[in-house]
Amino acid sequence: MTEAGWVLGVDIGGTNLSVGLVPRSGGAPARRLVRPTDASRGGEAVTDTVVDLLRKVMDEAGVDPERDVAGIGIGCPGPLDRASGLVLTTPNLGWKNFPVRDLIAEPLGLPAVLDNDANCATYGEWWMGAGRGVQTLVGLTVGTGVGGGIVLGGKVLHGASDAAGELGHMTINYGGRRCKCGNYGCLEAYASGPNIASRAVEGIEAGEPSSLPDLVEGDLGRITAETVFEAVLAGDAFASGVLLETARYLGVGLANLINLVNPEVVVIAGGVTRAGDALLDPLRAEVRRRAFLPAVSACRIMAAQLGADAGVIGAAGIFLAHHGALGERSDPGSAGP
Amino acid sequence: MTEAGWVLGVDIGGTNLSVGLVPRSGGAPARRLVRPTDASRGGEAVTDTVVDLLRKVMDEAGVDPERDVAGIGIGCPGPLDRASGLVLTTPNLGWKNFPVRDLIAEPLGLPAVLDNDANCATYGEWWMGAGRGVQTLVGLTVGTGVGGGIVLGGKVLHGASDAAGELGHMTINYGGRRCKCGNYGCLEAYASGPNIASRAVEGIEAGEPSSLPDLVEGDLGRITAETVFEAVLAGDAFASGVLLETARYLGVGLANLINLVNPEVVVIAGGVTRAGDALLDPLRAEVRRRAFLPAVSACRIMAAQLGADAGVIGAAGIFLAHHGALGERSDPGSAGP
Repeated sequence: MTEAGWVLGVDIGGTNLSVGLVPRSGGAPARRLVRPTDASRGGEAVTDTVVDLLRKVMDEAGVDPERDVAGIGIGCPGPLDRASGLVLTTPNLGWKNFPVRDLIAEPLGLPAVLDNDANCATYGEWWMGAGRGVQTLVGLTVGTGVGGGIVLGGKVLHGASDAAGELGHMTINYGGRRCKCGNYGCLEAYASGPNIASRAVEGIEAGEPSSLPDLVEGDLGRITAETVFEAVLAGDAFASGVLLETARYLGVGLANLINLVNPEVVVIAGGVTRAGDALLDPLRAEVRRRAFLPAVSACRIMAAQLGADAGVIGAAGIFLAHHGALGERSDPGSAGP
Repeated sequence: MTEAGWVLGVDIGGTNLSVGLVPRSGGAPARRLVRPTDASRGGEAVTDTVVDLLRKVMDEAGVDPERDVAGIGIGCPGPLDRASGLVLTTPNLGWKNFPVRDLIAEPLGLPAVLDNDANCATYGEWWMGAGRGVQTLVGLTVGTGVGGGIVLGGKVLHGASDAAGELGHMTINYGGRRCKCGNYGCLEAYASGPNIASRAVEGIEAGEPSSLPDLVEGDLGRITAETVFEAVLAGDAFASGVLLETARYLGVGLANLINLVNPEVVVIAGGVTRAGDALLDPLRAEVRRRAFLPAVSACRIMAAQLGADAGVIGAAGIFLAHHGALGERSDPGSAGP
């Protein structure tokens, strides 16, 4: 790898494509561009757009790919085959055995590394966000789904077949709510944005008094997690109860992770963090109720710090780490577990 | 560390003390001795017994501590402080901040390493048992309690404060059965030996027809997990149902672990494995129902192979690994994750 000062980061999501030019020493992207994914166009149209966006950020920054750019980190929903750069299958994008890495790397003539999008966001928070300087970190992203990643000794845990870190599909109630993955009682089936909304709607339909129907002019189908948080801020007791339950479900899942992994930091990202301490305080209380004291005492539970940049920054960091070049920052973080 | 050919392994349990003389290259202990722990005598009486037993196995084998023994690996229930060799607290033994490592090592003049007993048993199965040659392994021991350990890249996962790997206290049903740890819905609250027995008794008291009461002459308090397995072998449909549920609960917990860690092998140890495929087949089916295909496909779920030797062998292996001397076996297993 060259000693070039920049790395390209790519975050391919079901809704948006996000790319950025990340300094090799980390930190906020010098340039970042976001476009709708529009996956219905087909995979090659999507990777063509990514290539165009990457050329554009380099042009705008006056950066020469050959001289100034070390390579590309690409985050993409999985399951993946990292070694061959393939997306094996991904429901949101409709891809099957799709060579996403090479379709982006080859037109630009740059080396590239592919990893899971949730791993990239977690790694970004470890490298440059809420988890700077720690050895062991769990990242949990709560949005349309619940995903995450595990960093041990400064390395993403990939497992035997690149499938580790499926935090959202941990069963917390074996006979519980049906999850869109087909299983019952997954953390995601309780705590994802759409499931927060569903639980609110179910409560209202069961006769709970709430201001929520007024906020959506009686059209309960328009209730989202965002609407629930609005109602909490407006003092709605029922909505506060829904948020409190969400915190407890997330606390159950995190207590499990803390008992298993014993991390120094848990970073919570995604839309749900907008609820702030109204979510984090009862979540921490539930973790203390459920996990063992030595593990709880060692762990800080924090909101993410990088926001929408985490995936792009983390993808760039994973590229550098893969090439043994993540050495510039001053705090330790790459020793073994 | 000397190039001596032997390592002492110690497994301190609530019921028994087990020590052995393990060849540096691994394999069955050349000598093994077991004595009741009798923890009520106090900690120093227990460590005195361990020292006597260790002297005895060396004497019997004609082994000289100074010339022939590299050191001692000690497995003990936790939580522990490995670096200082302390048991912080352990309900079964009644110890608090007890310097178990040095009380064993100093009288013998040998270096020693302390680790959690469940980690040692898991490491033993990885080093010399069902998990030989793999990188990533989860061990689950189902006995009086449910414990375990996680091996990643040939290293035990210890986490930030030596508290990782508490597999038995994973919540699988957040509003479920009370666990002796104080939490609700832990895997252990369903699947440990005493809880298998409790669930059977509850069913009988609720009027389920079964031969179990006859097996204990009507004294339901005498029903153990062993009695339930006996009844299964004798064709008792109710007992078979209790065993099937046990398999499913364990399957829920293992599916969570497989989704999180993506191991190559899961090793199940402890009394419950006596039920054989009657347990393992429905357990594997539940895992397939709940975990993601790429993770399930990469994972073999196996019964342990070392039996009661696992803890002693694993403790010896952990001593060697700690001193960077676990290099003699021919298959790979010590590279990073």
